[in-house]
Amino acid sequence: MAVKVTAKSFEVKTRYEGEMIDITREVMEAVASSGLSDGMATVFVVGSTAAITTIEFEPGLLKDFPAMMERVAPKSGVEYEHERRWHDGNGHSHVKASLVGPSLSIPFCERELALGEWQQVVLAEFDVRSRTRRVVVQVIGEEVPRQ
Amino acid sequence: MAVKVTAKSFEVKTRYEGEMIDITREVMEAVASSGLSDGMATVFVVGSTAAITTIEFEPGLLKDFPAMMERVAPKSGVEYEHERRWHDGNGHSHVKASLVGPSLSIPFCERELALGEWQQVVLAEFDVRSRTRRVVVQVIGEEVPRQ
Amino acid sequence: MAVKVTAKSFEVKTRYEGEMIDITREVMEAVASSGLSDGMATVFVVGSTAAITTIEFEPGLLKDFPAMMERVAPKSGVEYEHERRWHDGNGHSHVKASLVGPSLSIPFCERELALGEWQQVVLAEFDVRSRTRRVVVQVIGEEVPRQ
Repeated sequence: MAVKVTAKSFEVKTRYEGEMIDITREVMEAVASSGLSDGMATVFVVGSTAAITTIEFEPGLLKDFPAMMERVAPKSGVEYEHERRWHDGNGHSHVKASLVGPSLSIPFCERELALGEWQQVVLAEFDVRSRTRRVVVQVIGEEVPRQ
Repeated sequence: MAVKVTAKSFEVKTRYEGEMIDITREVMEAVASSGLSDGMATVFVVGSTAAITTIEFEPGLLKDFPAMMERVAPKSGVEYEHERRWHDGNGHSHVKASLVGPSLSIPFCERELALGEWQQVVLAEFDVRSRTRRVVVQVIGEEVPRQ
Repeated sequence: MAVKVTAKSFEVKTRYEGEMIDITREVMEAVASSGLSDGMATVFVVGSTAAITTIEFEPGLLKDFPAMMERVAPKSGVEYEHERRWHDGNGHSHVKASLVGPSLSIPFCERELALGEWQQVVLAEFDVRSRTRRVVVQVIGEEVPRQ
């Protein structure tokens, strides 16, 4: 069968700095609505102060991951050049987002994403205020007939 | 020629926390067995305590990379909320894996991956015990005839 | 319309450790010259001491991001095993590059990359000297006719 490309995008309303939002269902829906059985889903967040990764989505790690990022790029105690120029208080948010990265590619086979049972796709909000985030899920693949 | 999608998966037996395993050959084989000459290979590790990246695979860096990760998310001296809930001793493993990320996409051209001579594809084991890891290599590309 | 695969590569001359180079225009050109309207561009840097990510390309962050990486993997004050074996003074460069990663996938729709207004694609040079970097942009997508 022929390979096809489809895309879906959706918005996520974040509420606070360090929030992690489970977007696995939205990614699954993008794959399902593509009608494709085998291929790859690329998840991309628009903007430079949020990131995409996978994590076991349980309350402990939702605190541990932002805490680690805070050790790497502390909000206070470090001088950010970004701050000196723009005074928007989010220099640390930018560098965190660049480190984790805005995109993630996940293969799928027989309509199932290759995620582990305790591995969810998450959007990490690193900005200092509530934001409306646009996430694009680009699906490339084909419909493989099976007996 | 038409674009095609193929996938191969394989298992990797890891032995200890901080182990880095060279999986370049397996990725090359997935590309070779696809029969495609030009495209992209996406390498994805299933699970939330391992990660995929590239590194110069030499004994020094196999110690330096885990040592850096240990500074970022120390096994001891930091309290992990994950630990308080689950008592499986791997909160630091989870946050390391989320930071590095489970996936990597590598272009290939004329059947050759775009890797540098001293750039290997590695699986990093961050969990505290031996694990059997499943890695999926999704190949999307085409067969370009050349003179 | 049929899905197609195209690739472009280009060289970037870097000048110093910690330099960040905006390669958004080159990625846009690779998409434009593909003739495709919808799909995905994967940006990959060849070599093990440079990385690809996105950032708001403004002078403050071009200092803040390398400064954060320097906290994570300091050039001095940490002993690198790589150094003890190879004496090329770039153990910290390698581990930084592996942490950020060599590849980034960006969806595009109606010939527009899904980047935010203040989100540029950058190559981060982590090596200790000027280098000539090869970057590959692999574009997979299709030409979708629109009214």
